[in-house]
Amino acid sequence: MVKTEIDYKKIGKNLYSLMEDLFPICRSITGNGVRETLKIIKKIIPVEIKEVPSGTKVFDWVIPKEWNIKDAYVKDSKGNKIIDFQKTNLHVMNYSIPIHKKIKLKELKPHLFTLPDHPDWIPYAHSYYKENWGFCLTHNQYKKLKEDTYEVFIDSTLKNGSLTYGEYYIKGKSKDEILFTCYICHPSLCNDSLSGVVLVTYLAKLLSKMKLKYSYRFLFIPETIGAITWLSQNEKKTKNIKYGLVATCLGDPGKYTYKKTRNGDTLIDKIVEKVLFDSKEDHQILDFWPIGSDERQFCSPGFNLNVGSLMRTVYGCFPQYHTSGDNLDFVDKKYLTGSFEKYMDAVYIFENNASYMNLNPKCEPQLRKRGFYDMAEKVDPDPVLVEVFINELLWVLNFSDGNNSILDIAIRSGRDFKKIKYAADALVNKKLLKKIDK
Amino acid sequence: MVKTEIDYKKIGKNLYSLMEDLFPICRSITGNGVRETLKIIKKIIPVEIKEVPSGTKVFDWVIPKEWNIKDAYVKDSKGNKIIDFQKTNLHVMNYSIPIHKKIKLKELKPHLFTLPDHPDWIPYAHSYYKENWGFCLTHNQYKKLKEDTYEVFIDSTLKNGSLTYGEYYIKGKSKDEILFTCYICHPSLCNDSLSGVVLVTYLAKLLSKMKLKYSYRFLFIPETIGAITWLSQNEKKTKNIKYGLVATCLGDPGKYTYKKTRNGDTLIDKIVEKVLFDSKEDHQILDFWPIGSDERQFCSPGFNLNVGSLMRTVYGCFPQYHTSGDNLDFVDKKYLTGSFEKYMDAVYIFENNASYMNLNPKCEPQLRKRGFYDMAEKVDPDPVLVEVFINELLWVLNFSDGNNSILDIAIRSGRDFKKIKYAADALVNKKLLKKIDK
Amino acid sequence: MVKTEIDYKKIGKNLYSLMEDLFPICRSITGNGVRETLKIIKKIIPVEIKEVPSGTKVFDWVIPKEWNIKDAYVKDSKGNKIIDFQKTNLHVMNYSIPIHKKIKLKELKPHLFTLPDHPDWIPYAHSYYKENWGFCLTHNQYKKLKEDTYEVFIDSTLKNGSLTYGEYYIKGKSKDEILFTCYICHPSLCNDSLSGVVLVTYLAKLLSKMKLKYSYRFLFIPETIGAITWLSQNEKKTKNIKYGLVATCLGDPGKYTYKKTRNGDTLIDKIVEKVLFDSKEDHQILDFWPIGSDERQFCSPGFNLNVGSLMRTVYGCFPQYHTSGDNLDFVDKKYLTGSFEKYMDAVYIFENNASYMNLNPKCEPQLRKRGFYDMAEKVDPDPVLVEVFINELLWVLNFSDGNNSILDIAIRSGRDFKKIKYAADALVNKKLLKKIDK
Repeated sequence: MVKTEIDYKKIGKNLYSLMEDLFPICRSITGNGVRETLKIIKKIIPVEIKEVPSGTKVFDWVIPKEWNIKDAYVKDSKGNKIIDFQKTNLHVMNYSIPIHKKIKLKELKPHLFTLPDHPDWIPYAHSYYKENWGFCLTHNQYKKLKEDTYEVFIDSTLKNGSLTYGEYYIKGKSKDEILFTCYICHPSLCNDSLSGVVLVTYLAKLLSKMKLKYSYRFLFIPETIGAITWLSQNEKKTKNIKYGLVATCLGDPGKYTYKKTRNGDTLIDKIVEKVLFDSKEDHQILDFWPIGSDERQFCSPGFNLNVGSLMRTVYGCFPQYHTSGDNLDFVDKKYLTGSFEKYMDAVYIFENNASYMNLNPKCEPQLRKRGFYDMAEKVDPDPVLVEVFINELLWVLNFSDGNNSILDIAIRSGRDFKKIKYAADALVNKKLLKKIDK
Repeated sequence: MVKTEIDYKKIGKNLYSLMEDLFPICRSITGNGVRETLKIIKKIIPVEIKEVPSGTKVFDWVIPKEWNIKDAYVKDSKGNKIIDFQKTNLHVMNYSIPIHKKIKLKELKPHLFTLPDHPDWIPYAHSYYKENWGFCLTHNQYKKLKEDTYEVFIDSTLKNGSLTYGEYYIKGKSKDEILFTCYICHPSLCNDSLSGVVLVTYLAKLLSKMKLKYSYRFLFIPETIGAITWLSQNEKKTKNIKYGLVATCLGDPGKYTYKKTRNGDTLIDKIVEKVLFDSKEDHQILDFWPIGSDERQFCSPGFNLNVGSLMRTVYGCFPQYHTSGDNLDFVDKKYLTGSFEKYMDAVYIFENNASYMNLNPKCEPQLRKRGFYDMAEKVDPDPVLVEVFINELLWVLNFSDGNNSILDIAIRSGRDFKKIKYAADALVNKKLLKKIDK
Repeated sequence: MVKTEIDYKKIGKNLYSLMEDLFPICRSITGNGVRETLKIIKKIIPVEIKEVPSGTKVFDWVIPKEWNIKDAYVKDSKGNKIIDFQKTNLHVMNYSIPIHKKIKLKELKPHLFTLPDHPDWIPYAHSYYKENWGFCLTHNQYKKLKEDTYEVFIDSTLKNGSLTYGEYYIKGKSKDEILFTCYICHPSLCNDSLSGVVLVTYLAKLLSKMKLKYSYRFLFIPETIGAITWLSQNEKKTKNIKYGLVATCLGDPGKYTYKKTRNGDTLIDKIVEKVLFDSKEDHQILDFWPIGSDERQFCSPGFNLNVGSLMRTVYGCFPQYHTSGDNLDFVDKKYLTGSFEKYMDAVYIFENNASYMNLNPKCEPQLRKRGFYDMAEKVDPDPVLVEVFINELLWVLNFSDGNNSILDIAIRSGRDFKKIKYAADALVNKKLLKKIDK
């Protein structure tokens, strides 16, 4: 990968605009919402859309029936729609079975879900593997409900069909691949789920235009069952997956969080930590824990892939999580853009990291006679900056003994990876350094 | 060992009551005080009482003459007993040789011991290996002494006899054994010495009723010379001793202290640290240092047994140490009980730790269809607690790859050992997990 | 090395007095200033003076022409010397080419160097590898310069000659050697450069009178080019250099800094850290970085010698660095003396560290019967101090199992190396310990 000028501002606009397009769709772990989502993504990248029939055994699980929904409401006895799926798909519990009957408030109540602590938000609820129906509403709405006879109507279907997922692969020079995965099963929620979807889409688009060392795989799958399905149907592919990231929760204003891989000390862990360190932005690094998103499956002991997750605020740790508060106002283009840059910075290190050998290992070479001072002065005559560049050269020379990659040198020196890479390139150019195959 | 319901309240009463019985006895490193102490313990557990004759060579040492004492006092010229052994045995320096004479204050003073910083406490003094005599008294008493002729009288004997110790062994399934040791050579002192004696006694009693994986050995020995004697006379037994704890200073209100084994990173170190972590009580973990109690001998380089010490306040670090202030008022039943529980918690982990293999290692198994959610809801319908249990199952499943014991998983997850063990049992029950022999 | 009584007060006087002698000399990387400096040092130790001709190839470098200077000044049109080399050699940029002409202020200015932030100090400037001329002056002086025609005169020569360095070697019992190196290329600067020169000189003198286990090598070289020259001309000698220190910045009032070797965890790193720990003086330990003084060359990957640097305030971190403020007032005899002691303490550990075997490894030996208590009481009857000594004996006995040197034991116990060494000696004397060859 050549370091190209990337127009992050334009990408940021695209990320947010795609999110606006995807937001209204009623997605679930199966059904037309997923297909519609993938169709929109396909306009941007040539994602392959796969269907796996209901009833297919995927390891310990079975693909459930496909769920679709056209409409749903609750009407009071005067015929007023007091809950209306058309206003937001969050109003219906995801995977609700069809129903149409009149019931008393007392019978309705066990099927209503609210958030007493956040009385203006509608919760997101689902019941994938236990047949049930329900409505979600704000607690303020709920408190106003009176004794009455209510008409409940859910025009859904739960039938044999299939689970749908999207996959996109970019072939690089090496078979070794890096996986970026996101989940497309959440309805109108932005930070959780959609922020990852839009980031992965445009990351794929950007990488598809570059000449790459690694191969890259991008998955758009329903969470949990989709990851299990993909792993079950594509087990052979996993041997090439060297590293990966689950992309989610990337549009909120919180500080970055990197959740390490299960193995915890792999190249991707070093790279993402370095990206966050170099960014000088607030962040935290957390050890792997086996709860969360699809890293649960990728890092299950039978696969143990080196998959971490780079997020901003961790799922469940922002109050808007799984509520109508996680909407287009909660996320911001600038946070999405910042997250995108971090992912690209990680790719940049993957593509550019290498080990070099100092070809003049006994004492320092004379840098001045080779024009390094002139070179630095040309960029910036400030003697402090000249010295900074010279120091970077010395770091690369001293530690390029065959044991350290330039990532190792950048970490040890506390200096920016890109600048260390630049110094290494300058030294290679002057025949003081040689790339070595490892 | 099956997790049984243990009546810690009753045990606490027994611990304190035994301490009350043992407190008045004038013990030393040899003599009838030790025998009387062991006789009382024998009423509770069938401890074997051994006698090793004076003059026996034990490594670099020789068993000294046996010391016994009937009475002792200092009288002033008017015949008033101003220091009286009958009031407390601390008044006489332990191992004082017999004496009966009249002397001036000036001659008496070098044989008097006081604590100027704690003028109301009598110090505990001894002179085992250098023949001498002396009296201990409060500094306030001392200051009142006038020029006079005093009658000093110590009715002691120092003759060939033997060193006495007690030993009790519980055979478990394995020959591998765990040692609990305490010292029975201190006179009327409670926290230092006696707290360990009563704890070890009732720990032995409790374990004797259980079916055990490990074998357990309990020693009641005089400090230093007793440990050296036991090691010298029982050297062959040491090869089975895999881990051990020196029990002392367990009845005071201070925070827990674990003094690690000399090797410092053994199973017992991990277990005791985990017990203290899980207790959520204040504690400190200290690296081994070769000064203290009988871990000095068990951890000498020629044995290097994995023996640590779980205490509350370390010997020498509470002001009452080796004074009449270390009495029945200083220790409290509730602190003894808490200490006892920690020892039992450590035994619980020893007995129940094991490694398991996830039988469904590729992706997570579907927990819901196996009734785990119902199981959790039955115990407590609080969805947070249900989720906690599910999380514990996921921790066990993810890390049961053959490399981690459930203790490792409990440590890594920061979750209670007992709950992780419970989760493992539930998974074994559902055939998702299998115990493996290591 | 026997622990001898060292008269540090006298040494401190010598250090400062030598610095006073060396201060006025106009040194550079070549030339008579270096020769004059070495001649003065030769009065103290029999340093060998070597000359390497200009034009000699030394690895990637070439020995430059030799520079000498007699006089230099700038005169205004009235004939007043407004800058005068005779006042301080810092006034002329080091390695200035000869010049004699009349120029306008505008032409003069690019050749003038000042420190606007420290308007009373004259900067130290040099231009070794790029022919140029210049004058350094205070910023206050500079601001007073008026439009005028100035006579600039530099009576210097830049001709084929040689690079001069000094070397001194003390043969010890072993061929393994320890290197102390300092640089003699700086003109009138005290803390940077000269503090190291005077310390190394008197360290060599002191060691030359002792019977030593290690051999010692002392280098007095121009910085960078001198180190490169020495390494190039003496490559075979480097295989015996096991450890080394670059001595500089040792006379200022700042806290100690130890810059570790490139390998970072070698014996010299442990020793210097221990010396600073035992001193109880404020200090910091820094990881190696490949910028600084001659450790850059000694630690280049082709040599990778275990050379660290023990300083007080690091070069560049005190404002006087490379200015006329780094003069005889800035450094102080007492700081030089303290630094000297630290170097000697490090040598003391090198010479006295050893591994021992406990000859009574099963349980503790009986210390009392061997007179250790009497021995301790003889030194100081304070029972606390007696106990401290007994504890030191126990530390040595417990950990002398063949795996730990007494340095390891001193570090682990947090106790003074000298006291642990004393305890080991006492135990060897009583046949409880035996030195082992490692």
